Amino acid sequence: MSDLPRKVDIHEEGPREGFQITSQIIATADKVRFIEALAETGLRDINCVSFVNPKKVPNMADAAAVASAIRKRRDVRYSALWLSLGGFERALQTPLDLSGLILLSASEAFSIANTGKTTAETVVEQSAMLKRYREASIPVEWASIMTAFGCNFAGDIEPKSVISMVATALELATEHDIQLHGVRLADTVGWATPVAIERVVSSVRDRWPHLRIGLHLHDTRGTGLANAYAGLRMGVDQFDAACAGLGGCPFAGHKGAAGNICTEDLAFMCEEMGIATGIDLDRLIDCGNLAEEIFGRPLPGKLMHAGTLSRFRGAGRYN
Amino acid sequence: MSDLPRKVDIHEEGPREGFQITSQIIATADKVRFIEALAETGLRDINCVSFVNPKKVPNMADAAAVASAIRKRRDVRYSALWLSLGGFERALQTPLDLSGLILLSASEAFSIANTGKTTAETVVEQSAMLKRYREASIPVEWASIMTAFGCNFAGDIEPKSVISMVATALELATEHDIQLHGVRLADTVGWATPVAIERVVSSVRDRWPHLRIGLHLHDTRGTGLANAYAGLRMGVDQFDAACAGLGGCPFAGHKGAAGNICTEDLAFMCEEMGIATGIDLDRLIDCGNLAEEIFGRPLPGKLMHAGTLSRFRGAGRYN
Repeated sequence: MSDLPRKVDIHEEGPREGFQITSQIIATADKVRFIEALAETGLRDINCVSFVNPKKVPNMADAAAVASAIRKRRDVRYSALWLSLGGFERALQTPLDLSGLILLSASEAFSIANTGKTTAETVVEQSAMLKRYREASIPVEWASIMTAFGCNFAGDIEPKSVISMVATALELATEHDIQLHGVRLADTVGWATPVAIERVVSSVRDRWPHLRIGLHLHDTRGTGLANAYAGLRMGVDQFDAACAGLGGCPFAGHKGAAGNICTEDLAFMCEEMGIATGIDLDRLIDCGNLAEEIFGRPLPGKLMHAGTLSRFRGAGRYN
Repeated sequence: MSDLPRKVDIHEEGPREGFQITSQIIATADKVRFIEALAETGLRDINCVSFVNPKKVPNMADAAAVASAIRKRRDVRYSALWLSLGGFERALQTPLDLSGLILLSASEAFSIANTGKTTAETVVEQSAMLKRYREASIPVEWASIMTAFGCNFAGDIEPKSVISMVATALELATEHDIQLHGVRLADTVGWATPVAIERVVSSVRDRWPHLRIGLHLHDTRGTGLANAYAGLRMGVDQFDAACAGLGGCPFAGHKGAAGNICTEDLAFMCEEMGIATGIDLDRLIDCGNLAEEIFGRPLPGKLMHAGTLSRFRGAGRYN
């Protein structure tokens, strides 16, 4: 009936996305506690912090302290994000499991608003960063194409713009002798619908049939899991998500406004559809509850409020 | 790529579902204000109140008063729900646009818990109600099969149980000379996933290829719009939804816990995918904001916090 994968890799973005967007200062110890709890759920890649300007993102001022404090499990990758070489050099001083990312935007207007750089300038910068990663023996595994489904500055994004940026990312990888694991398409500001996912993913797949595709989705307008399902149907088997639905889009300042798609809701949907995630849902629900305790307010995740179905199964008179 | 319908009918359940589930008493005037605002959005069927035991559902004690106070538009149907003949007789005294519903459950355990009646007893009762509707010249247009995707008492529900109840509903209709518009499958307690939607809808469709199918979905575990998309792909063109994501499931007492799928989020997804809804999204967003004002707390709808995409289109330098 469709091309659902047998298993998916879910990368946890909750700590980075969640701490990054909130204006309340979260204690370092709480950040560490949340990351350590997430590492006990079966998640294998946890994006912990970003090395960005602490004047712009005060909650990331303690990124290095968080990184040092985590008691690491061997089977979990504790990753990080940075947007500049300066940020990378700071990340390099920590015990985090760094990997470089080729980061491009399908919308030049977004690129300019986000980093002050045109697409051409971004390519030059990315090339310099790839050179530095090589010197530092840091692997590069994924490219990420931001605003692949729409942009608040440029409006609708045509698949050909995404194709063009994927081609640029693959050229950059080739130039630097990098064998990418795949390319991640990001719905950075929450424009996607399932039909848009199908359109863009199929365009990329038509051009590069063997390229692994990942999706980074925000649930800004409620379509997040529908978009994930559209991706799953097309065989997409890597998703970014955030525990409790943490995160958010800069323009939606409303309390509780939509962040990333919620990890436990996505994992629940996958598991119920027979797609393995490797995640212990009950433990992940505990992490969602911990996040609400730390943030001190209700968070948008649904499963953590309703619970899984396991307690209803096998107990009924009519089952 | 799929069998998406060109247009869908969305029945608004927000007033009934929302007022029914909340423990806070909402003023009659606020209920009327909300219903009247919803009627200005293009919605054509608004479920306003339920005629149920006010001792169990205190917010429905003023159902008749709400019904009488609404300034009605001619092009909107102001509907209501009841679960017994007594409730129906009360509804009949109001100026609401009544239509009878054949209401069955795919789970006998749920039926017993919900109404105290076995499936056989329910069929007898429904038959008596259909007789009474005919005497009162009240049309009967839809059958609704509750717990069609899972049940907190019985666990998983096999498609054959749904098929059996649809067959019963169609037999009841035939016995009473009723030409049903269609059968609505309800995910009453939020068990469905897109794969379950496909499985059950295709089972029903295989048996009755020309029967119109509607979906009543709750977003209890975050899969609501993904489930709606799965239905749309199969050509389902009638959905129940609730403005602002009002409603809720009795066992999820958490503040802001998942209710019905959110009308404006569903309508946004449909419109963005080229499926006409007849709804003015901006006006519906205003209704969502009004609901938050009336309920005095953030509600789960997403679009009302993020806004539509129209303000970003056509304005960009790169568009």
